[in-house]
Amino acid sequence: MNQKGIRHHQIGDTFDDFMLIKSATKGVASNGKPFLTLILRDQTGEIEAKLWEATKEDEQTFVAEELARIFGEVNQFRGKPQLKIQSIRPAQTTDGVKPSDFVEKAPVSEEDLMERITEAIFEMKNPNLQRITRQFVKVYQEALLTYPAAVKNHHEYVSGLAHHIVSMLNLAKQFKALYPELDQDLLYAGIILHDLGKLKELSGVTAPSYTLEGKLIGHIPMMVEEIGTVAKELGIEGEEVTMLQHMVLSHHGKAEWGSPKPPLLREAEMLHLIDLIDAKMNMLNRALDKVQPGEFTERMFAMDNRSFYKPLFTDHYTD
Amino acid sequence: MNQKGIRHHQIGDTFDDFMLIKSATKGVASNGKPFLTLILRDQTGEIEAKLWEATKEDEQTFVAEELARIFGEVNQFRGKPQLKIQSIRPAQTTDGVKPSDFVEKAPVSEEDLMERITEAIFEMKNPNLQRITRQFVKVYQEALLTYPAAVKNHHEYVSGLAHHIVSMLNLAKQFKALYPELDQDLLYAGIILHDLGKLKELSGVTAPSYTLEGKLIGHIPMMVEEIGTVAKELGIEGEEVTMLQHMVLSHHGKAEWGSPKPPLLREAEMLHLIDLIDAKMNMLNRALDKVQPGEFTERMFAMDNRSFYKPLFTDHYTD
Amino acid sequence: MNQKGIRHHQIGDTFDDFMLIKSATKGVASNGKPFLTLILRDQTGEIEAKLWEATKEDEQTFVAEELARIFGEVNQFRGKPQLKIQSIRPAQTTDGVKPSDFVEKAPVSEEDLMERITEAIFEMKNPNLQRITRQFVKVYQEALLTYPAAVKNHHEYVSGLAHHIVSMLNLAKQFKALYPELDQDLLYAGIILHDLGKLKELSGVTAPSYTLEGKLIGHIPMMVEEIGTVAKELGIEGEEVTMLQHMVLSHHGKAEWGSPKPPLLREAEMLHLIDLIDAKMNMLNRALDKVQPGEFTERMFAMDNRSFYKPLFTDHYTD
Amino acid sequence: MNQKGIRHHQIGDTFDDFMLIKSATKGVASNGKPFLTLILRDQTGEIEAKLWEATKEDEQTFVAEELARIFGEVNQFRGKPQLKIQSIRPAQTTDGVKPSDFVEKAPVSEEDLMERITEAIFEMKNPNLQRITRQFVKVYQEALLTYPAAVKNHHEYVSGLAHHIVSMLNLAKQFKALYPELDQDLLYAGIILHDLGKLKELSGVTAPSYTLEGKLIGHIPMMVEEIGTVAKELGIEGEEVTMLQHMVLSHHGKAEWGSPKPPLLREAEMLHLIDLIDAKMNMLNRALDKVQPGEFTERMFAMDNRSFYKPLFTDHYTD
Amino acid sequence: MNQKGIRHHQIGDTFDDFMLIKSATKGVASNGKPFLTLILRDQTGEIEAKLWEATKEDEQTFVAEELARIFGEVNQFRGKPQLKIQSIRPAQTTDGVKPSDFVEKAPVSEEDLMERITEAIFEMKNPNLQRITRQFVKVYQEALLTYPAAVKNHHEYVSGLAHHIVSMLNLAKQFKALYPELDQDLLYAGIILHDLGKLKELSGVTAPSYTLEGKLIGHIPMMVEEIGTVAKELGIEGEEVTMLQHMVLSHHGKAEWGSPKPPLLREAEMLHLIDLIDAKMNMLNRALDKVQPGEFTERMFAMDNRSFYKPLFTDHYTD
Amino acid sequence: MNQKGIRHHQIGDTFDDFMLIKSATKGVASNGKPFLTLILRDQTGEIEAKLWEATKEDEQTFVAEELARIFGEVNQFRGKPQLKIQSIRPAQTTDGVKPSDFVEKAPVSEEDLMERITEAIFEMKNPNLQRITRQFVKVYQEALLTYPAAVKNHHEYVSGLAHHIVSMLNLAKQFKALYPELDQDLLYAGIILHDLGKLKELSGVTAPSYTLEGKLIGHIPMMVEEIGTVAKELGIEGEEVTMLQHMVLSHHGKAEWGSPKPPLLREAEMLHLIDLIDAKMNMLNRALDKVQPGEFTERMFAMDNRSFYKPLFTDHYTD
Repeated sequence: MNQKGIRHHQIGDTFDDFMLIKSATKGVASNGKPFLTLILRDQTGEIEAKLWEATKEDEQTFVAEELARIFGEVNQFRGKPQLKIQSIRPAQTTDGVKPSDFVEKAPVSEEDLMERITEAIFEMKNPNLQRITRQFVKVYQEALLTYPAAVKNHHEYVSGLAHHIVSMLNLAKQFKALYPELDQDLLYAGIILHDLGKLKELSGVTAPSYTLEGKLIGHIPMMVEEIGTVAKELGIEGEEVTMLQHMVLSHHGKAEWGSPKPPLLREAEMLHLIDLIDAKMNMLNRALDKVQPGEFTERMFAMDNRSFYKPLFTDHYTD
Repeated sequence: MNQKGIRHHQIGDTFDDFMLIKSATKGVASNGKPFLTLILRDQTGEIEAKLWEATKEDEQTFVAEELARIFGEVNQFRGKPQLKIQSIRPAQTTDGVKPSDFVEKAPVSEEDLMERITEAIFEMKNPNLQRITRQFVKVYQEALLTYPAAVKNHHEYVSGLAHHIVSMLNLAKQFKALYPELDQDLLYAGIILHDLGKLKELSGVTAPSYTLEGKLIGHIPMMVEEIGTVAKELGIEGEEVTMLQHMVLSHHGKAEWGSPKPPLLREAEMLHLIDLIDAKMNMLNRALDKVQPGEFTERMFAMDNRSFYKPLFTDHYTD
Repeated sequence: MNQKGIRHHQIGDTFDDFMLIKSATKGVASNGKPFLTLILRDQTGEIEAKLWEATKEDEQTFVAEELARIFGEVNQFRGKPQLKIQSIRPAQTTDGVKPSDFVEKAPVSEEDLMERITEAIFEMKNPNLQRITRQFVKVYQEALLTYPAAVKNHHEYVSGLAHHIVSMLNLAKQFKALYPELDQDLLYAGIILHDLGKLKELSGVTAPSYTLEGKLIGHIPMMVEEIGTVAKELGIEGEEVTMLQHMVLSHHGKAEWGSPKPPLLREAEMLHLIDLIDAKMNMLNRALDKVQPGEFTERMFAMDNRSFYKPLFTDHYTD
Repeated sequence: MNQKGIRHHQIGDTFDDFMLIKSATKGVASNGKPFLTLILRDQTGEIEAKLWEATKEDEQTFVAEELARIFGEVNQFRGKPQLKIQSIRPAQTTDGVKPSDFVEKAPVSEEDLMERITEAIFEMKNPNLQRITRQFVKVYQEALLTYPAAVKNHHEYVSGLAHHIVSMLNLAKQFKALYPELDQDLLYAGIILHDLGKLKELSGVTAPSYTLEGKLIGHIPMMVEEIGTVAKELGIEGEEVTMLQHMVLSHHGKAEWGSPKPPLLREAEMLHLIDLIDAKMNMLNRALDKVQPGEFTERMFAMDNRSFYKPLFTDHYTD
Repeated sequence: MNQKGIRHHQIGDTFDDFMLIKSATKGVASNGKPFLTLILRDQTGEIEAKLWEATKEDEQTFVAEELARIFGEVNQFRGKPQLKIQSIRPAQTTDGVKPSDFVEKAPVSEEDLMERITEAIFEMKNPNLQRITRQFVKVYQEALLTYPAAVKNHHEYVSGLAHHIVSMLNLAKQFKALYPELDQDLLYAGIILHDLGKLKELSGVTAPSYTLEGKLIGHIPMMVEEIGTVAKELGIEGEEVTMLQHMVLSHHGKAEWGSPKPPLLREAEMLHLIDLIDAKMNMLNRALDKVQPGEFTERMFAMDNRSFYKPLFTDHYTD
Repeated sequence: MNQKGIRHHQIGDTFDDFMLIKSATKGVASNGKPFLTLILRDQTGEIEAKLWEATKEDEQTFVAEELARIFGEVNQFRGKPQLKIQSIRPAQTTDGVKPSDFVEKAPVSEEDLMERITEAIFEMKNPNLQRITRQFVKVYQEALLTYPAAVKNHHEYVSGLAHHIVSMLNLAKQFKALYPELDQDLLYAGIILHDLGKLKELSGVTAPSYTLEGKLIGHIPMMVEEIGTVAKELGIEGEEVTMLQHMVLSHHGKAEWGSPKPPLLREAEMLHLIDLIDAKMNMLNRALDKVQPGEFTERMFAMDNRSFYKPLFTDHYTD
């Protein structure tokens, strides 16, 4: 397995390791011969690669979700690194590599994530909210523990959704301590369920794309519908169901961001803010990690295209 | 019953007739005595009235949805007509008046509206779309035939929703003739179902307000959920269900107008436009009806606050 | 003449046929030698082509609006097809090809379009509106029957403007049937004249660009002025002239879309909507024609950059 | 005639003088008796007045544009001064008062304004621009010298339009000195003609309202049309006509402010800015005149609702 | 002193107690006699009152910031309560009432607030940030402990600013625990200083208005300047000063909300969010306190004009 | 030195002259060899150049701010000119060329600019405004006379800032003559100081970039702070200081353009407009200089992306 990771290679470096093919697109070069543009990834990042003069067999062998051993050199094309492939072969069983080793994962284990979610459900006192939430976690447990929280921007890695949920639960616990007026049960249920619609909106874990239902309906209305269905199945009626649907429906905060109703409950407003805080901290921490003190990060699209500064002095006094 | 209608009274006229109480609010006058502010209506319009020195009994007798016989005079207060009540008594069984005589109604009978909707369903060839649509019409028939299409702005009268649906079906039939690429079944199903969520969003027919679910969830996600539920009950699966949910979800056209997804089907785009055209024509025709050739209408909030002109010449040549 | 059309060629195909040169731009290659970038078109579409090592004579021969016989191969450059020219020669009289065979045309003949427009004018009862409209059609007949309705987006083909007008007249006829309050004469006159300013705003039929007057004044104010002039020439005075000018002036619907006044007549509002519907259906139908059921169209700039879905099921039940 | 002016009266003051009736509206008081709400004005400002228990004769006598002698007291109603009429009589010939004494006028005489405009035309070297401009001034001279520049906000007084034109000509002269690249003729012609469409958009001088053509077409397209007509009458062709039409068309600067084309000539951009500067200085000077140093003006709608501050120190050093 | 508070009075109640005059405005009644409109307040809220037939002496006695004993009756005027004064007298020394008893205060004592702020400063490790922060707290201690955080919307009560700061410090402590990458010193310093400019922007504690400098410069640039000045006085240079100025400058989040630079530091982004959360929770809690379960709050201007719902079920399970 | 200037070279021309290196970036070619992308400039403009197969020594020799003699050929790459370097050597002392010969400069000498600024300060009567202004000019004189007014768009050349100030002073003098109500001292002081913060916001004269303080604080708040500091140093207090800070703070006109307060003084409004006019005229004149009569300029980003037209007729009549 890759000891070093593609992210740490410099222009001019030789490369010789396994990588996961994220996508493969065929093209025809100016000499009339076909070539493949491969997006390759390992746990540290992605790189574009060109396989020139690709044969029909190459096209069928090197496809998305497959692993390959690649020998080549890191060049630069229009200011971005590009891997020039000199030789490539498909991975074999005897190589002892598997796709899940080549994708980024949450820094917390699935077991710990599950434990914290279970604990939060256990703390809930309102039986209606608790039963609905528990049912969803039970039915979707496997996907819930492996899906990313999004296709890009924040928590876009394996177990990203559960990682996001657990961070939000921790924030909510502190908010409840500081603002005791908050209904903890509603907030916990809202946090656990708010993005579960993504399990149907996205196609999978390793290289997620949008499903047809995801494109035409979207995860928010899909989840509102499913909360209604689950409540009926469990024979639960009453305001809690509507409130929970409202929590999910309004968590994007504004109509133009995909919530047909803005938050109209104290807890819905806080759910929206907690979601925002955790997504932003996840993006900021990961972007600032990549730069040195005294530098600015690259522009971050989901942070209004801002470039953040990492001060020089922070190292000196804080641990 | 009122021969003439409140809309036709002039400032200074004596008034002596039955009216429906739309709302009743208590106040205390500058002399310290309680009074009632009544909003009264008949088929031609509304007027505010003051019942000075109201007794406890008055407060309990003259409440919303009740009928009363009123004698008084039409005055003016801040530029708007106001009815000064000189005597008032509750209507009695022997008066032979009923609330439904005092509200505005669609210019087409419930029977004719039902017939046209049934006919459209009958024309549908796709069994999935047809069965779902028929099921909704069956379950909601009574409300569907009496509810207004909205609380204000357009088709805001008894049977307004069905009137709006039928006008839209007629438009759709013509569109299909001119643009044969349109899928008529999808368009018909979308038209009949697009606003049915309002039957749960609004509280009733005579003086509709928003229900709790209407305020927190809204008719669009409510209807998307219910299409899912009905499809499951009927054992229908497949793209038609998602397409129909998308038609309803997207019919407001834009996220900021309440549709989390914009129209992404040819028929969804047309549904949005047909809805717009019929709502606008309904508003325009009713506003222009109230003015003389050569005059401008009052400003219309739902038409971007525009004031429309009624030309002088149209009478001469067109019928 | 081209049997198959450029749109139907695949990457790697050999090409050998006549094409119309839409534009020709000179460049200098990295080896210091001049080359020509040609945009070529036939009735089915366009393709970019490179003529390497172009001579002075090539530059003078292969210019916009000329026809040429080309032999070459369809390659791909940055994800888009590109024609690599191996040999090229100008078309000669004996080749029997003419430019008009290489441009897209409306699916209805000029005769049929003219007939329908004439019929509409004949139906008009208001003599003032009728005379002004007839005068414009008489003066501009030739251009009116050949111009496109726009440089891009919708009806951007030969006779596109007349095709658009006729579709709109058909819609208007149906609208009048459903909403008899509409003044048909005003609507018909508005439809026929609304975009005639484009005959002066655009430079021609085959490869239209904007004229100086088009850039600095625009087709809407130009047409408002010309209606005034024509009315004076015909000795017509009165409200009809102002109403007709208003119809044209307001047909883009909003100031930010180029109409200094929004529609303030019932018919002006409908003209704006009818224009919108027909432009959208024209764009949607042509984009959906290019994809298979189950696919999404390419993003459409003039439809808010949306990508539309073509359902799988529509084939089964509707014809 | 009024020695002091209504603007200088305090709450509680007795009032006894002639005033011009700007508008008169009938109402019915809570005692059932009719009254008149009069808006009265003199050269210093306006006040609302109530004539209680108005007779039929009063209604016919005290109408807009008439003069009346009024005796009463200045009260306050909802924070604004109101004149309580104790007696009122129509002005008679022998009173020696005339309407033009009761309206605000430009601080420069009509003769001086005309002289400066004539001088500017005389300075023009381009015969085409000069002839068109001279023709407009000749035809509209009387209205041009008396109309206000707007119904409200800036230069909204008698001769306001000519006053605005002359200030702008003075600014343009200085701009030409500082930026010699400017074409003075085009700028002068644009300044003189830019708002002449208002002579048809507005109904008159004393109490201007919008004409039907003003409401449905607007002064900008009306003037573009008329420049075309005048040029044709004078037999002038060529770029100057289009440029001049563009100057007028674009002088509001943006589509959402009523210019379908933004300025695309250096002189058009400057015309827009000169118009802006002079309108703003006119509003600012008049608003700051009404307050003392150390105070803020009232909020000014046409200045983005800002309230401007008048510094204390300016008196000390500048003259 | 007031046992019950004006907020708890019903329409029709007799009122007999001391109140603080917040503002007093003179008017003239329709009978020509002067009256005073007083805004009165106690710790529970405000009410408008009318003192009819006010004498010159009344005008001089009953002015803003004074206390008065009032006997009267609670009436209603245009849907809002109004106090009809039957007798009034100024408070005297012997009455034993003082203005500070009649204004709303933070629910935490000044001592506790000061202790928590001191503790936070003590926890800071970066000497530059600590010294600057300590200096500000030392210089402004008195005002800091008494000023409101704003004129309206949130924490608009005595000690509101310190209350807001302390809540934010508590939130920041929890954020640091969950996101250890945050620089606690920078966050603490930013929180304590972010709104101190309001001590100069606002005129005082009891009835704050904006100072001239507040209106023309605003608290953000004023504070940026003062941080620079204090740093120079303390002889502190380096990145910390700029970072702290940036924290203050950017804490409104966007240019259109008054921050010429958006947050470009991780801690600046969090400061903005923490400020938002605490302001929103303060507004929400206070608005929801005033309504019963099952009701909606009044519309809240600073929460995008939303009306929040208080669920029925929360009472049952959570404490 | 370059006789002709890079701007006047055509595609295909041979080039042999000195140029200033504005920036140098390393890349790796598809053959794996390093190359340098150089941006080169002289007084007439810029060009991109490629130095293929660059050695380590080349990388160290050809860096920003150095001069080099280059022999090569002007080619075209993606529609833009590109210089293909055939030989290159660093300039030597004996070549007699210096960087300042290769940058664009204001068309007025530093001495004349300084004289006009000094004259304006001399004309000021208010001693407080005069002393503050004089102090700034004294301290920053050197930078003030050499810095550009901006990194791009307008006056982006050596002495651009002073050139802009002097043009604005000339405009202000004329404005004062036409609108005597303006306080000339405040306007002059505001003009001279409004952009001085750029001396700290930008890194230097020849190839300016933004400083850290410039990025995080910006020139407007930096200058507001410094005016406060200078006033304190000079012992000046009073409204003038606040007014001057307001002039600088508000000169961008709107919050979204970087002014946390909009202009609230007559002179602040005029400062904003004068700044706008001079920036626009500078951009327009330079863009129109590059095109022939009858042509449009390239699109100008800072002019709302407009392309301006240069009329044909202006040459004939005006000098």
